[in-house]
Amino acid sequence: MIDMTRRDVMAAAGGLATVTLVGGAAHAADPGRKLGYAIVGLGNYGANVIIPQFKNCRNSRLVALVSGDPAKAKRIAAEHGVPERSIYNYQNYDSIRDNPDIDIVYVCLPNSMHAEYTIRAAKAGKHVMCEKPMAVSVSECQAMIAACKQAGKKLMIGYRVHFEPTNLEAIRLAESGAIGKRRYVRSEHGFVQTNPEAWRLKKALAGGGSLMDMGVYSLQAARYMTGEEPVSVYAHETTDRRDPRFREVEDMIEWQLEFPSGVIASCISMYSANQNHILLMGEKGRIEMEPATRYEGNHLWTGKDGREQEITSLPPGPRSTQFAGQLDHLSECILSNREPIVSGEEGLRDMRIVEAIYRSAREKRRIAL
Amino acid sequence: MIDMTRRDVMAAAGGLATVTLVGGAAHAADPGRKLGYAIVGLGNYGANVIIPQFKNCRNSRLVALVSGDPAKAKRIAAEHGVPERSIYNYQNYDSIRDNPDIDIVYVCLPNSMHAEYTIRAAKAGKHVMCEKPMAVSVSECQAMIAACKQAGKKLMIGYRVHFEPTNLEAIRLAESGAIGKRRYVRSEHGFVQTNPEAWRLKKALAGGGSLMDMGVYSLQAARYMTGEEPVSVYAHETTDRRDPRFREVEDMIEWQLEFPSGVIASCISMYSANQNHILLMGEKGRIEMEPATRYEGNHLWTGKDGREQEITSLPPGPRSTQFAGQLDHLSECILSNREPIVSGEEGLRDMRIVEAIYRSAREKRRIAL
Repeated sequence: MIDMTRRDVMAAAGGLATVTLVGGAAHAADPGRKLGYAIVGLGNYGANVIIPQFKNCRNSRLVALVSGDPAKAKRIAAEHGVPERSIYNYQNYDSIRDNPDIDIVYVCLPNSMHAEYTIRAAKAGKHVMCEKPMAVSVSECQAMIAACKQAGKKLMIGYRVHFEPTNLEAIRLAESGAIGKRRYVRSEHGFVQTNPEAWRLKKALAGGGSLMDMGVYSLQAARYMTGEEPVSVYAHETTDRRDPRFREVEDMIEWQLEFPSGVIASCISMYSANQNHILLMGEKGRIEMEPATRYEGNHLWTGKDGREQEITSLPPGPRSTQFAGQLDHLSECILSNREPIVSGEEGLRDMRIVEAIYRSAREKRRIAL
Repeated sequence: MIDMTRRDVMAAAGGLATVTLVGGAAHAADPGRKLGYAIVGLGNYGANVIIPQFKNCRNSRLVALVSGDPAKAKRIAAEHGVPERSIYNYQNYDSIRDNPDIDIVYVCLPNSMHAEYTIRAAKAGKHVMCEKPMAVSVSECQAMIAACKQAGKKLMIGYRVHFEPTNLEAIRLAESGAIGKRRYVRSEHGFVQTNPEAWRLKKALAGGGSLMDMGVYSLQAARYMTGEEPVSVYAHETTDRRDPRFREVEDMIEWQLEFPSGVIASCISMYSANQNHILLMGEKGRIEMEPATRYEGNHLWTGKDGREQEITSLPPGPRSTQFAGQLDHLSECILSNREPIVSGEEGLRDMRIVEAIYRSAREKRRIAL
C-alpha cells in the first residue's frame, strides 16, 4: 500500500519515476492540495492544542486519529469530520499504511514513545512530525533519522517556536546587527508542576524532568538567538528528591554554553517556578522576550539599557498561528521536496547537548561538545 | 596623638577606661555628634558621588581630603568647608594621625591601593570605610582585617546597596516568604567600557576586570537575596584579547553558585553590554529589580508569572540616600561600638569567592568553596 500511495501521487503529478523526488516535484504541481495528518496521542497537546489548528492551515488537514481511548477518539473524530474508519489504536497502528488519506503522522505521545511511533510511521510509508523532545536519547534520534531516510520520508520536529512571529522577529533583529556584536543570551523556562502523577514526572515516559520539557525551549533559544553551535557545557542540577513530584526526574537544572564567537548562554529549566524568558545582550543593546515561547501573548522589547521599546507590530508570520505554520511547513516541504527547517538532524543536535547537560550535572564538570 | 584623640573622646564621655569600649560606650552618650571623614582619592566616585552626600548625613561630616592633585583638593576643600590644613597628599598621608578631626578614612582609591591605604589608616588610629572590592586578594583582605583589629578600629566595606531602599525591600520580601521557597537567583551587572585608558582596565590598578567592578554587585546580590553562603562555583570567562580595552583584564565572566538549600545563582558581569538586573524566583513567584543597583532610579516588581506589580511605595530607608545611609552607619557603629553590617569579614567572604571564580574560569572546572 506504500506503493499504492506513491503511485497515486505520481499519477497526479504526471508520473515522475524517481522515488525520492515523488513527494516534492510531484506535489509541487498541486500546491493547493492539503496533506492529511494522523494525530497519534490524544492528550492535551494533541487533542486541545494541535487538532483545533487545522482550521487555520492552508496545506494540511486532519484525516486520522490514533488513541488508546476509543470513546475519546470517536468524539473528537465526530467533532472534526474524521471518518470512523480512520480511527486507530496502538494495536492496529501499523495498518495506517493502508490508509492513503494519511500523508503525515504527528507523534504527540510521551517522550519515550517518540522513537517507536516515528519509526513505525516511516515503515508504514508516512512522513513524520514528531513532538519535542525528539526522543529520550541520541541513539533513538539516530534510529529515527535512519528509518525515515530509508523509507524516503520527511522527518520534522515539533519546534513550533520557529514559526512564532515574536521569536522570528527577535531572530531577525539579532541577525540584523541592531544590537551590535552578540555577547550573552539567557533563556529560562519553567512552571510549577502540581500533579505528582503527571507523565512528565515519570522517568520511563518522559526520559527526564524539566530539561526534557521546558529545557528544550531554553536550549533551542540559546542556539537560534546566537546562530551558533555550542562548544562546551557545564550544568548543575538541584532537585528535592523528598518531594513526591521529583522522585524520578529532575526539578531544576541550569547550564552554561560556550559558543565559538565567545558568546555565552545561560539557560535554566525548572518545575518549581514559573519563568518564560529570553534575553539577548549585545554591545549596543538588548532583545528581550517575556513571555517568550507561550502559545500566545508573547512580548518583545528592545532597548539600550532596559525594556525601552516594545515591538508590537510584527511582520506577519507564515500562517495565522505558530501551530498552523508548523503543520503547513511540513506539508509544503513534502509538496516541494525540501528539508524542514527543523529536521530530525536539528532534534538530534539538541539531544546531543541534552545528554551532555545531564552528564555534566552528574559528573560535575565541563563537557566539551 | 592617637592617645590624645582617645583621651578627648573619653573625656567627653566621662572617662571610660576600657580602650576597646571607647568608641562605642563613649560616643553613645553623644549620639548627635558628627564623626569626621577623610576622603582618600578624589576620582569621580569620591569627589562627585560621595562628598556631596555629607549634606544628607546625620552623624557624619567631611573634614579632610587626601589627593595627589593639590589644585583639585584645594577647590573641593573650599567648596565643602574643609580647612586647608586638612588637605593631605600621598606623601604625608600618615600624618592624618595628628588630625583629631578625622575619625574615619574613606578609601576611594583604585582597587589595588585599598589594602595599603586601609592598613596605613588603621595604623594612624583611624576607622576605615573601604570602597568595594575590598582589595584584590584574600591575603590583602586578611591583612586589612588584622590591621584594623590590632588598632582597635572598625572596618567597613562600601557596599552601598545594603542601604538602598529597593534592595532592602526586596530582601525583606524574600525573607517574608512572599514568594515561597527560594529556588533561583539571577544577577547581572555590566556596562560598556568605552575608554581603553580607564584605570579599571589596568590589571595593576584594578586587580581584574568586570568581576572586580560590577561583578561584586552580582555576587553580593546572590548572597543577600538567598541569605546563604555558596558551596561551589563554576565560572566561564570570555574576552576578546585583541580588543584594546581588554588586553589586561577580563570583559565578561559568568558564574554559577550552588547554595546549601539547593538554590542556584546565575551571575554575570561584563564590560561589553549594559545590564543591571536582579531576579529571585520562588515557588510562588518572583522578586525582580531592574535597574537593581544604580545610584538612583531602581525599580522593584513582584509577580506570579511576570512583572505583575511594581512596588513603588518603599519603606523609608535609614537615610535620605543609600550613600548617606552607608556613611552614617559606620559613624553609628563607632558611636555605639557595634560591628558594621558590611564588615571586613563580609568583604573577605566575597573575595574568597572572587578568587574561586577566577580559578574556576582558568581551570575550567567546578571549585568547591
